[in-house]
Amino acid sequence: MEKKLAFERYEELIEAGKLKELKDELVELNIVDIAEFISEIEDRHVLLVFRILPKDIAAEVFAYLDTESQTQIVQAISESELHYLVEEMYTDDAVDFLEEVPANIVRRVLSVASPETRADINRFLEYPENSAGSVMTNEMVELHDTVTAGDAISFIRHHGVDKETIYNCYVIDSQRHLEGVLPLRRLLLAQDSSPVRDLMDDDRQVISVGTLEDQEAVADIARKYDLLAVPVVDRENRLVGIITIDDIVDIIEDENTEDFEKMALLQPAEDTYLKTGVFTLARNRIVWLMILMVSATFTGKIITGFENMLAAVAGLTACIPMLMDTGGNAGNQTSTLIIRGLALGEIRVRDYFRVLFKELRVALLCGTLLAAVNFLRMMLVSEGGYETFLIVSVSMLCAVIFAKAIGCTLPIFARVVHLDPALMAGPMITTIVDGVTLLIYFSLARAFLM
Amino acid sequence: MEKKLAFERYEELIEAGKLKELKDELVELNIVDIAEFISEIEDRHVLLVFRILPKDIAAEVFAYLDTESQTQIVQAISESELHYLVEEMYTDDAVDFLEEVPANIVRRVLSVASPETRADINRFLEYPENSAGSVMTNEMVELHDTVTAGDAISFIRHHGVDKETIYNCYVIDSQRHLEGVLPLRRLLLAQDSSPVRDLMDDDRQVISVGTLEDQEAVADIARKYDLLAVPVVDRENRLVGIITIDDIVDIIEDENTEDFEKMALLQPAEDTYLKTGVFTLARNRIVWLMILMVSATFTGKIITGFENMLAAVAGLTACIPMLMDTGGNAGNQTSTLIIRGLALGEIRVRDYFRVLFKELRVALLCGTLLAAVNFLRMMLVSEGGYETFLIVSVSMLCAVIFAKAIGCTLPIFARVVHLDPALMAGPMITTIVDGVTLLIYFSLARAFLM
Repeated sequence: MEKKLAFERYEELIEAGKLKELKDELVELNIVDIAEFISEIEDRHVLLVFRILPKDIAAEVFAYLDTESQTQIVQAISESELHYLVEEMYTDDAVDFLEEVPANIVRRVLSVASPETRADINRFLEYPENSAGSVMTNEMVELHDTVTAGDAISFIRHHGVDKETIYNCYVIDSQRHLEGVLPLRRLLLAQDSSPVRDLMDDDRQVISVGTLEDQEAVADIARKYDLLAVPVVDRENRLVGIITIDDIVDIIEDENTEDFEKMALLQPAEDTYLKTGVFTLARNRIVWLMILMVSATFTGKIITGFENMLAAVAGLTACIPMLMDTGGNAGNQTSTLIIRGLALGEIRVRDYFRVLFKELRVALLCGTLLAAVNFLRMMLVSEGGYETFLIVSVSMLCAVIFAKAIGCTLPIFARVVHLDPALMAGPMITTIVDGVTLLIYFSLARAFLM
Repeated sequence: MEKKLAFERYEELIEAGKLKELKDELVELNIVDIAEFISEIEDRHVLLVFRILPKDIAAEVFAYLDTESQTQIVQAISESELHYLVEEMYTDDAVDFLEEVPANIVRRVLSVASPETRADINRFLEYPENSAGSVMTNEMVELHDTVTAGDAISFIRHHGVDKETIYNCYVIDSQRHLEGVLPLRRLLLAQDSSPVRDLMDDDRQVISVGTLEDQEAVADIARKYDLLAVPVVDRENRLVGIITIDDIVDIIEDENTEDFEKMALLQPAEDTYLKTGVFTLARNRIVWLMILMVSATFTGKIITGFENMLAAVAGLTACIPMLMDTGGNAGNQTSTLIIRGLALGEIRVRDYFRVLFKELRVALLCGTLLAAVNFLRMMLVSEGGYETFLIVSVSMLCAVIFAKAIGCTLPIFARVVHLDPALMAGPMITTIVDGVTLLIYFSLARAFLM
């Protein structure tokens, strides 16, 4: 609320042309808040506000702006301003930005960059999307394994300013092979004369990832080992970059969003909701809606096969939605827990029988309780005889047991055959549980009521 | 795979009694991997392996063990060993551990702790669950605002070893009020004689959280501002602790898990799946299953009201599951995107009309395509006349439009009235969409087919 009021006051300053005052207020803010303010103001003011910022602050703010404002600024500023901006940005931020903007902007940016920066950016742009190479930065502290702690500290004090993090130093040999990681804290606490080689972590395998490793695997490693940065190496184990924790946090949120989308039958989107066009949104949704609608032909056929019975016995049809919904909900509960457990590494394939046994007991508990309450509920509100109530209740128990069993089996099976549990399990479970629930229900009804 | 083989070899070393060899191999591993190994071996070997580790490594490993192994160790080791362990652990790790174990273990641990540690732990245990106070640590670097950079660095080199992070220093006045944050990198790059007061970030408001702030809000702040640690202050703005990024990452995953659970109609669990008992699992699931089953009385009543029509017109009943599933899926797609967007701050309440308009256009696109394909599908596989096919298709279009509209409205409405969008929207959407879909379908059928 406070921030909203402040932003309104800044806008008034713009309208009143009090730019000096605005500048004095803005430079007191956190970089992220300045970027938030610029992303919210009217388009015609974006450039104005960006330009009153001191150069170094402007360069930092730029990385946090939305793509729209970034594009607008890049199109409007002079070549020398743009040159300064590109050289000041961290390589990973520059690459992030260039991956989002139109080709003519990319060309303009690359044309003003220094040859080294241009080479770096081009190399980074070539890594496949979502690979470690595409999210890493090459601004890290590298120490040769021959130097001492004192030399290392003075090296950092002279060269650290441009590095994205100085809190982990990477020790390399003369061939740039990654030999070990040296946390700055250990360096600071060490004697000046200690050789870096004796101080570094040199576990049998230094924790690192390849450039082509999927970003999700990188995030898992950082999370598991509580790392502030993950080093990235090429095939010959030469250090090429690092991925810092702020990017890891973004990757974790992106991967979670992707899992949410998959489990809600959506194809993952590239952009945030508000920035995604209507056609893309529709395309991401229609695939599963269509597949599941067509596969419902199957449940339709089952009902058609029992149409005479449904017409003859009052009250049978009315229970179809309740049975299907309860089965679907029960299956979804289980599959969500299992998919999440697999994603976080808390459940492994070899736990399958333990999980299945657990689910069967949970299903028996939940199913029995649901069946009992349903029986009472039907006595109160439904027409029809006790046999019908009993058949609906028993069907419900069977549906819950089946749904829970399939709900834990499918995700684990998906993992075994190297498919994505989140992608495969959700849609299939609905279809299978719907069909089987109806078959159980109708078969029981035909056996006992006809 | 490699790790699995290594673990098997270590187990063989245990069986063969080659403990010296085992120790030499284990101490070369990362702390997290040693803990993983101990968590996986047989119970009777846990203490044996823990005890062969050098004291300092053992203390670090302990924080990463599962609760079961921790309990076993605490029960078996001597008072002096336990004292060392407790004093070596970071306060936040000790508190995490004590929150999970039985009361007699807590008593044993507190009885051997030093008075200061005991006071710290007791104070931390009193903060409400999931509050900033309950997850913070008090091992941070505090600098008085009167010292110089040179003094600060030598202070850190002498006292930094026990701090959970030294990469951010917190500048306080004589009353312990938080005045600013000083990243270590800036300190290192500064002149020895510069006063700390001139070097620190002193944005108008230093970014900090209160002890009672919800941990989710803390994670949001860390994510937004790319912080390595978030300072925690009491009501008088006195610094009481920090929350470090490794804990922030865990909080993010926990909050995501909670959202997954809520959206799958589960009450959030405290523990991982495999550690949760069958009764707890059943209790977490039965609530929503029961509510939704009972609320299905409503859809049942609608069907009963149209029972004669369903018996008279062939093919109407068979389409009920398909219509309900498609409506439910379409609604879920939308509500998931909106709930996720709200959680990440990408969608705000004031975007409602923009979102609704977008959803209506998406619904029109998806719904029309689904309706058209459904018409063709029914021509191929269904009995009944073209009027029936047309009515089913039009009902599907209406259901999709309604589902998308309610799917974006409910989560945003929940946010407006300060309810949890994830908790409220999921279950209500299913019930409402089911009922409305059936009403649209049956009303159209009665109007045109009877």
